[in-house]
Amino acid sequence: MRSSKYLLATQKETPSDAEIVSHQLMLRAGMVRKLASGLYTWLPNGLRVLSKVEQIVREEMNASGSIEIHMPTVQPSDLWQETGRWDKFGPELLRFKDRHSRDFVLGPTHEEVVTELVRREVNSYKQLPLNLFQIQAKFRDEVRPRFGVMRSREFLMKDAYSFHLSDECLQSTYDEMYAAYCRIFERLGLEYRPVLADTGSIGGSVSHEFHVLAESGEDAIVFSDNSDYAANIEKAEALAPAGERPAPSQEMQEVATPNAKTIAELVEQFDIKVEQTVKTLIVKASEESEHSLIALILRGDHELNEIKAENLTEIASPLEFASEEEIRAAVGAGPGSLGPVNLPMPVIVDRAAAHCSDFGAGANVDDKHFFGINWERDVVLGEVADLRNVVEGDPSPCGSGNLSIKRGIEVGHIFQLGDAYAKSMNAAVLNEQGKNQTLTMGCYGVGVSRIVAAAIEQNNDKYGITWPDAIAPFKLAIVPMNMHKSHRVQEVASKLYEEAKQRGIDVLFDDRKERPGVMFADIELIGIPHVIVIGDRSLDKGVIEYKNRRSGEKVEVAVEQIFDQF
Amino acid sequence: MRSSKYLLATQKETPSDAEIVSHQLMLRAGMVRKLASGLYTWLPNGLRVLSKVEQIVREEMNASGSIEIHMPTVQPSDLWQETGRWDKFGPELLRFKDRHSRDFVLGPTHEEVVTELVRREVNSYKQLPLNLFQIQAKFRDEVRPRFGVMRSREFLMKDAYSFHLSDECLQSTYDEMYAAYCRIFERLGLEYRPVLADTGSIGGSVSHEFHVLAESGEDAIVFSDNSDYAANIEKAEALAPAGERPAPSQEMQEVATPNAKTIAELVEQFDIKVEQTVKTLIVKASEESEHSLIALILRGDHELNEIKAENLTEIASPLEFASEEEIRAAVGAGPGSLGPVNLPMPVIVDRAAAHCSDFGAGANVDDKHFFGINWERDVVLGEVADLRNVVEGDPSPCGSGNLSIKRGIEVGHIFQLGDAYAKSMNAAVLNEQGKNQTLTMGCYGVGVSRIVAAAIEQNNDKYGITWPDAIAPFKLAIVPMNMHKSHRVQEVASKLYEEAKQRGIDVLFDDRKERPGVMFADIELIGIPHVIVIGDRSLDKGVIEYKNRRSGEKVEVAVEQIFDQF
Repeated sequence: MRSSKYLLATQKETPSDAEIVSHQLMLRAGMVRKLASGLYTWLPNGLRVLSKVEQIVREEMNASGSIEIHMPTVQPSDLWQETGRWDKFGPELLRFKDRHSRDFVLGPTHEEVVTELVRREVNSYKQLPLNLFQIQAKFRDEVRPRFGVMRSREFLMKDAYSFHLSDECLQSTYDEMYAAYCRIFERLGLEYRPVLADTGSIGGSVSHEFHVLAESGEDAIVFSDNSDYAANIEKAEALAPAGERPAPSQEMQEVATPNAKTIAELVEQFDIKVEQTVKTLIVKASEESEHSLIALILRGDHELNEIKAENLTEIASPLEFASEEEIRAAVGAGPGSLGPVNLPMPVIVDRAAAHCSDFGAGANVDDKHFFGINWERDVVLGEVADLRNVVEGDPSPCGSGNLSIKRGIEVGHIFQLGDAYAKSMNAAVLNEQGKNQTLTMGCYGVGVSRIVAAAIEQNNDKYGITWPDAIAPFKLAIVPMNMHKSHRVQEVASKLYEEAKQRGIDVLFDDRKERPGVMFADIELIGIPHVIVIGDRSLDKGVIEYKNRRSGEKVEVAVEQIFDQF
Repeated sequence: MRSSKYLLATQKETPSDAEIVSHQLMLRAGMVRKLASGLYTWLPNGLRVLSKVEQIVREEMNASGSIEIHMPTVQPSDLWQETGRWDKFGPELLRFKDRHSRDFVLGPTHEEVVTELVRREVNSYKQLPLNLFQIQAKFRDEVRPRFGVMRSREFLMKDAYSFHLSDECLQSTYDEMYAAYCRIFERLGLEYRPVLADTGSIGGSVSHEFHVLAESGEDAIVFSDNSDYAANIEKAEALAPAGERPAPSQEMQEVATPNAKTIAELVEQFDIKVEQTVKTLIVKASEESEHSLIALILRGDHELNEIKAENLTEIASPLEFASEEEIRAAVGAGPGSLGPVNLPMPVIVDRAAAHCSDFGAGANVDDKHFFGINWERDVVLGEVADLRNVVEGDPSPCGSGNLSIKRGIEVGHIFQLGDAYAKSMNAAVLNEQGKNQTLTMGCYGVGVSRIVAAAIEQNNDKYGITWPDAIAPFKLAIVPMNMHKSHRVQEVASKLYEEAKQRGIDVLFDDRKERPGVMFADIELIGIPHVIVIGDRSLDKGVIEYKNRRSGEKVEVAVEQIFDQF
């Protein structure tokens, strides 16, 4: 491609409305443009990357035995009514009526449509297992789309669905998908980790997420330093502290704490360690509970894990915190003065908080705390559960090593769904015994457009993007210096351009009449991994310059040896 | 691909709701399944064909210098309000509100979005010309979707848009697109014709349609038998008959015609030739006209060309016929007794009707006709225009040869749009003189999914589809006979399958435990062009059978020579 015949669309200024580096660089490098909130046009530099990611995903899905199909984006509502998701799905599900006033949705996912297809096409165990995938634009009407294509409303997704008659068969396809995903991210050239994940609202039993590692990642993922264990922090179990709870050594006393509404203020103003405080969070109980509110007790330095909390049957899901008014009405004190002693509602205590002795907590009276509280002596220790996020250094739940924490961007998710969809949609086939048997399903997603943003979060420097070769918009840039004044430079550059094309190298020939500085800045910004610079000064010496974008390394080589450099 | 690991999804029965052969065969050959009215899932056999068509289109667009981008499917309404199409576009434009009650459309076409992009990104004549394309699922909410993917609501389209500062530059890109389209249809292996087309409601000056020829085609296209002239019948000019109008030889007389309400009845009941009759059609006048109705006069054997009529400034567009009540109120007679004599409204006479002498027509009194009418003597001949469809044998409007008529399916359309969109959206750049100048545009569409159906309409026989090699779902089928009983057959078949894959041949290995008859029927139905049959009887002779699907030709060849056959 010649720059002069191309839409490079680079920008010097960092757009003010782009909060994260991938969004800024995608705008500056001419990869995307915003059409409306959460809707982006992919410009040539962006689409070239997106297509390369898409093609790697497709090839590895094909290699894994999954079969490509293509379902409509527009889906009739009746299927969503069959599974109950017409009511359950929130306003992220975009609904509309067609010209005949029939209800449709703009597909955010395709479990219903693919199950409808399979219940019609598959009648016998002989046709199973079956694993179908598609790569398609999806729509999710996010309340606050942001971060460019990282969280857009229209996005490109690979979604696959597998169908089986036994859990063993599902497990086997699940393992194949896990392996295919590893191959995909390896080929993309990204640092990634598969981690155990919560199955959450999708249901099912087993689930893994695939994360691209990046400091800016929204998710915390945890690893054992001595085993393969890796999990989303949402899922990672926090073990109970080792050993017995220390015996009480202090008397419980009431302390006036008028200026301490938070744990941080308490620790600052009084002689008490944060590990010897607990905090009390009041949440709504589930409909099954006989109470309306439940208190969660965590150690002062620990964070509530909302997923763990809402997975408890007593607690409403999604998790909902009581308002200050509701707390005052129930307890008679504000949220800054709560504690387990004399609390008029059921209490669930985190494993670490349950291990505390001689600890401080609010007295359920405004501006008062108790210090020197001890479980069982001063307050009954009721239900104990894992309620907190693990922290760096916690023992690994696998039993080997300690945990470290990194940030990740979720770009893939695989699920063992079980029969949730097949049952409600009555998807069954004749088994080997000639009896009707409900199918069991897996589903497997990759956020194709999100991978592009995640790759940039992981691979950038102050000059722009540092693409891995596999997904760079071009593999090679040819930058001639003052070509329009030097016939020799023009001749060498054009010859190398033709040769690169013949070798099947994806090459950008920057033949614009621009100053070298402008050309270098653009090439570095859009992140072409290999750069050839051709100028009269080096040609005088019989060489040209090769520059590696990622390492920054420059070497002078003879013209005829240039293609050995990369 | 092994059949046993694939979703072949063939059906024996012809689906009752499929009216045309391509729709029937796409269902039977496991290519598509209907999800809802006008919404189809592409199964593996269909998607393989669709992807091959898509890839050929992409390659030729790239080769022509067009640059691929990808715009959102969901488009904000404000752009459609800018061009006025928010009001002008009918209910085919699917409109909906997002969760914040903002108006959006599901894109049927992207003139607005691409013009918005270009007016932001392109500021200088130096960036022009620019030709951008995308390949994308589009949505048009057809009132009556039918014929499967031939007229579906969601469909795959290649749309391209070019931007220029002069008509010469637009013409040059238009010519490149014309040539690219010819290459596309040649590579697809389809019999096609580019024809002159009406620019219609899109506006602009020059337009060509690309038709796949098929007897079942909805469109009539006309050709000169002595030149390159070809046009959609909507566009083909009907020349005035040669020579002077014959002089009157009869007196005008009134005839009672109580049982002749149509030209056919008139000709049957009276001694008059159909070429000596005229028919009178009453249509609504345009708002510019001072009348509300206008009469169109055509020879009795000719058909009104509605496009030609509505292109006349006096006539309402879209064309609207007067109702029987309106006709009676204006004329005092019903539609079966109309004629030019004593007609109380303006008349536009077709060129052929204007050449008639001694002709018959209704008397504008129920159950009465005049015979022996002559223009100017009996009734003033006012405006004469080209109003009719050409017929087989008409002189070609190019001046050379006579016209023949074939049926075609429109699969591509290219337009010189001019400044219609650029003007209303204020898309301008600085020209070489440093002045702001409005852009001029072209647009270029290919119905990618429609091509699949059109190719089948053109290429089928009683056994199924006879694909051209370039777009067959597989190029080669390997059909082993009783493989599960013969180790030798299994060995040869597996070896040839591996060799075909190594040679990069798209191959289907039918390894199902089915009777040979079932396998042959499926392979012929889905239309794999080259078939290798392996059985013990031929292996005894040291040969295998090669069959060509299109020609039906069978030959026996030595195993090691099989890949020389195709």
